[in-house]
Amino acid sequence: MKIKDLDTIAVLGLGLLGGSVGMAVNRGLGRVVRMGYSHRAITRKKALEAGAVDAICDSAAEAVKKAQLVVLASPIGTFEALMHEIKHSLLKDAVVTDVGSTKRLPVRWARKILGSKVRFLGSHPMAGSEQRGVEFARADLFDEALCIITPTAQTKKETLELVEDFWRELGMRVSTMSPIMHDRVLARISHLPHVLAAALVNCSDAEQLLLCGKGFLDTTRIASGPPGIWCDILMTNAGNTAVAIGRLIKELQRMEKALVQGDDKAITKMLSEAQAKRNDLVEKKMIRKELPA
Amino acid sequence: MKIKDLDTIAVLGLGLLGGSVGMAVNRGLGRVVRMGYSHRAITRKKALEAGAVDAICDSAAEAVKKAQLVVLASPIGTFEALMHEIKHSLLKDAVVTDVGSTKRLPVRWARKILGSKVRFLGSHPMAGSEQRGVEFARADLFDEALCIITPTAQTKKETLELVEDFWRELGMRVSTMSPIMHDRVLARISHLPHVLAAALVNCSDAEQLLLCGKGFLDTTRIASGPPGIWCDILMTNAGNTAVAIGRLIKELQRMEKALVQGDDKAITKMLSEAQAKRNDLVEKKMIRKELPA
Repeated sequence: MKIKDLDTIAVLGLGLLGGSVGMAVNRGLGRVVRMGYSHRAITRKKALEAGAVDAICDSAAEAVKKAQLVVLASPIGTFEALMHEIKHSLLKDAVVTDVGSTKRLPVRWARKILGSKVRFLGSHPMAGSEQRGVEFARADLFDEALCIITPTAQTKKETLELVEDFWRELGMRVSTMSPIMHDRVLARISHLPHVLAAALVNCSDAEQLLLCGKGFLDTTRIASGPPGIWCDILMTNAGNTAVAIGRLIKELQRMEKALVQGDDKAITKMLSEAQAKRNDLVEKKMIRKELPA
Repeated sequence: MKIKDLDTIAVLGLGLLGGSVGMAVNRGLGRVVRMGYSHRAITRKKALEAGAVDAICDSAAEAVKKAQLVVLASPIGTFEALMHEIKHSLLKDAVVTDVGSTKRLPVRWARKILGSKVRFLGSHPMAGSEQRGVEFARADLFDEALCIITPTAQTKKETLELVEDFWRELGMRVSTMSPIMHDRVLARISHLPHVLAAALVNCSDAEQLLLCGKGFLDTTRIASGPPGIWCDILMTNAGNTAVAIGRLIKELQRMEKALVQGDDKAITKMLSEAQAKRNDLVEKKMIRKELPA
């Protein structure tokens, strides 16, 4: 199956990401029929009204029946149940992917539940916001953002190409990585910052916070993300995230020590390193056009 | 001295903040003559060309001679030397204030160096950005932002009123607090987030960071601030900041423990508390019009 031959997809889960997948497919792959499913009737209705899908089904099994490509776009904590629900209804050659923020467990679940014959390939489109729900979905959500795809030794070349082409048609840049490496890297660049933002809010006094400026609000923005979804993400990447927290605590203790000792050279060094490293990152992202110049 | 009688001010230090003070005075208090001083000749030239001041002097002592109000706007680490330099040139009733990010030490230095007869009152206009230099200065930098003023038992009512009115004329909301309380609160809402942002950058791998999304960039934005200035801030509030770091480490350890134990209830509780607290903060800031609705 090549992307040009794709005629039907199923999107299971119609929130911000699932709804945006539907809209972006409509924009980039207009001929493809989009079947949708959400476990909530009101969401199914909203998604249809918003034009996120062409048709809705009352069950996930029904939605996947004619789909050559199935996208799991519900919270990661529902994946196992969803896989059980659809496994007997999938087309023989259907490709299944997902939008989950961790990849090691979804890939393992797929192998166990769907079996090795089903072509599952994990995806992590790194787009979104702290907003939730199909009402925030939009066709350009994925534009210029990165999608990490996590093939394994079992992944067929044809499956990899289809999933890569799919996300590219939705406007994304695509990168591949093993599921294990993905989770290790994401613990550092995404899950740790989330934990940190929440911890910073939690250890502050609400009255004092009213005096805060833009710096505090930016530093903690991601703490406004949905707790349930983030709990699932952290639970499915607990080991790596705990290691990352330990590493950060060591770094904070270095600063604590320098402050107590009045070691201005050490403080300046740490701040200078961080500044140079972040400025370098921003510059590289501008060159790659991932950030406006 | 009332604000309406003010005819000359001196701004010592002509970077982002000093330059913006000059421009905002021109906008809000157009009749007031603005004398300026920077230790760098090139900055003096730029500030004059940018219209940040009406005249420049080669020394701080010269700049303050006719000023009824003197604003120290150089990095906090230069305050002691600057106070020594101007103390014999100040007008008898001159009021001296500053824009430093910590207040306990500047207030103490002023009492020690300028003496109790000079009317020093600490100010902390909470505006700025990670950018530096008079080239980024603008008349509206302070609009709608908060200025914390830190009177002590020695502060004259007339001095307090003048300084309050001054910042209000520059577009700011004004709040008062003791220097000690100011530093304790700011450690939590400003200095800790800065340390945290730097630590997060420092404990990340540069290659891996290239995969990061908007969340990481927002969380670490303030780490791009000038290291020298921030070292001064942290050094002059070392005790409070060290305590705040310790408090944050405890919070991170709670999360680390919950992850290792797979305690999803505890994780969800921490994330939910943070989300609710931050959303509440954002809502209150919108009601106060400190954030766009």
